[in-house]
Amino acid sequence: MTIYLDNAATSHPKPPAVYESLANCLQIAGANPGRASHKMARLAQQIIEDTRLKLARLINASSLNQIVFTFNATDALNMAIKGILSPGDHVITSRLEHNSVLRPLQNLAQKDISLTFIDFSPDGLINPKDIEKAIKPETKLVVITAASNVLGTLQPVAEIGAVARKNNLLFLVDAAQVLGVMPVNVEEMKIDLLACSGHKGLMGPPGTGLLYVGNRAQVKSWREGGTGGDSLSIFQPSLLPTGLEAGTHNLLGIAGLSKALDYLLKETIEKIRDQELSLMMCLLQGLREIPEVTLYGTLDLKQKVGVQSFSVTGYSSDEVAAILDEHFDIAVRGGLHCAPLTHQVLGTAPDGLIRVSVGAFNTIADIETFVLAIKEIVKG
Amino acid sequence: MTIYLDNAATSHPKPPAVYESLANCLQIAGANPGRASHKMARLAQQIIEDTRLKLARLINASSLNQIVFTFNATDALNMAIKGILSPGDHVITSRLEHNSVLRPLQNLAQKDISLTFIDFSPDGLINPKDIEKAIKPETKLVVITAASNVLGTLQPVAEIGAVARKNNLLFLVDAAQVLGVMPVNVEEMKIDLLACSGHKGLMGPPGTGLLYVGNRAQVKSWREGGTGGDSLSIFQPSLLPTGLEAGTHNLLGIAGLSKALDYLLKETIEKIRDQELSLMMCLLQGLREIPEVTLYGTLDLKQKVGVQSFSVTGYSSDEVAAILDEHFDIAVRGGLHCAPLTHQVLGTAPDGLIRVSVGAFNTIADIETFVLAIKEIVKG
Repeated sequence: MTIYLDNAATSHPKPPAVYESLANCLQIAGANPGRASHKMARLAQQIIEDTRLKLARLINASSLNQIVFTFNATDALNMAIKGILSPGDHVITSRLEHNSVLRPLQNLAQKDISLTFIDFSPDGLINPKDIEKAIKPETKLVVITAASNVLGTLQPVAEIGAVARKNNLLFLVDAAQVLGVMPVNVEEMKIDLLACSGHKGLMGPPGTGLLYVGNRAQVKSWREGGTGGDSLSIFQPSLLPTGLEAGTHNLLGIAGLSKALDYLLKETIEKIRDQELSLMMCLLQGLREIPEVTLYGTLDLKQKVGVQSFSVTGYSSDEVAAILDEHFDIAVRGGLHCAPLTHQVLGTAPDGLIRVSVGAFNTIADIETFVLAIKEIVKG
Repeated sequence: MTIYLDNAATSHPKPPAVYESLANCLQIAGANPGRASHKMARLAQQIIEDTRLKLARLINASSLNQIVFTFNATDALNMAIKGILSPGDHVITSRLEHNSVLRPLQNLAQKDISLTFIDFSPDGLINPKDIEKAIKPETKLVVITAASNVLGTLQPVAEIGAVARKNNLLFLVDAAQVLGVMPVNVEEMKIDLLACSGHKGLMGPPGTGLLYVGNRAQVKSWREGGTGGDSLSIFQPSLLPTGLEAGTHNLLGIAGLSKALDYLLKETIEKIRDQELSLMMCLLQGLREIPEVTLYGTLDLKQKVGVQSFSVTGYSSDEVAAILDEHFDIAVRGGLHCAPLTHQVLGTAPDGLIRVSVGAFNTIADIETFVLAIKEIVKG
């Protein structure tokens, strides 16, 4: 069986109840939710609203209507960025961001929206003071990842939120690497918008994502179409969540996510985080013993999620990933991880790094096998 | 068991292999396709490319790279409409369109894009000559539904395509009610862009859709983000399909759609269409015998898909739908079906109509029970 260490891309496996829910959901509630009043459509709608409520509770949103279901985190980030910004606005973001933030912003930079990219320390951390210094009169939005998908470093989200709120800016957080493995509280952290996928730390199926929209944010409609209610109007309704939820939901994905959230809440994020820390301690101890391995970003485990990138002297990152796959049946990720600016700053572009990312179902034995495999590889 | 006659919203049930594929796919190929080279990610990618090829063949696209996977038909329509039009452009569309066409267009109408709405005949048909007459020097795009989701009427797609091509316009077809139940050939019909959901006639799971992009159409990027390749660039790549496919795919949905397409190709669209015609013949015969029932749109079955809307004297559409659900366990749809202009023209807004839509798994017995139920209702 494959040792799967690519959980930053998508978590695998999922809790057993997620698999069980899929076919079952399509069979009993396979109607189009919110579009009719018949029993099957109501049951489908019930699954969606239950899941919405679980997500609202998970991040301490004040209402379940602040949770918008999206296609994926990229969809949520596009919706937020393009729904908030207008020509003339200025945005502060960082060089740690994923292309799902960089590329929508870069598109808008061609339409009279200006960008400032904040640097990060060798440890992989953004300094909230740098954000404060970058604020201009026309600054509208701060967009920051809660944890780098390359370095795993947890950013000072609450401190950045405080800076944004004090300066009357909106604060958008990319929580793709954090939700499900670290506590997130949108009220306490002063987060106005939070985008996340459903298939990483939240352990749901792919094709699911969410956007939290707080009361301070007015997000213009982006994907317009049928919303079930307000059918008489040819204008997109502004009411949330439907105003941002045109088209048919990924009902199966949401049903699976619902079961995954049950698992997560029962196991508790604290326990999952503790398990992650044990795995990471074992991983770092093992890799530090190998002189040919160079580790990137902070090695302080309290400062990071279960993601570690490294290089191996004499090998490209893709070579190591391919050998691990072919000879050891271990799944990791080489390359740039869709984060080109991060690798530019680290000096690791264009080759990239080997990224290993642990999940809730990995074991210490997985990590030991992985470290042994790297030792084998460096022996040549 | 519910008699499900709401297939125009989403088909139900799905072919058995679709259910079987779901948990299986997530277990064996639950990695993130196109983002790594390890075996699981490659298997996931293979499922996506196989399904892409099946769709390309189904509509006679010249390359599988012309098929873009989307969240749903609404997503595909937004992507096409917003990716094609620029300020100053004029668009020709019809009053038969769904809000997934009307609302994106209405949004653009506020940004210096002008619209002409073509009327339809009492039968529910658009006249290609009306489209030709509406062409202006600044006309860029014609957007037409292949079949009205309220009346089921098949539009003269090939004739409209010929008009568009002759006048050097782009032609976007909303095929949500047609793909899987009628043959569609994008080359012969001169279709430049075709949007469709995966969960209606194509019998796949919800959260799936597709956009066909022909060679004449240059669609600007819409949802920008990680695309697996080209990670070094902070600009969205323009190459299709990846340029329009940022973010993680609904892998399960696509795997289910793949199995549904196998079923469809094995059964053949011709056989499914014949079955639909038998069901519709039985339905129309039954409903025409009831004096309190008023049928809308053409009754010529060759001119329509398996969708029929009607009213019942003395009852609102929602009342009839609710009685059918509660007392007869029959699922149909009342209201406006997200097509406000259609109901305005028919004079049936704001109450709407009762819509019954048959699917490949309905039986003559379902239809007979349904007709008997309507007879019971009118007896009061």
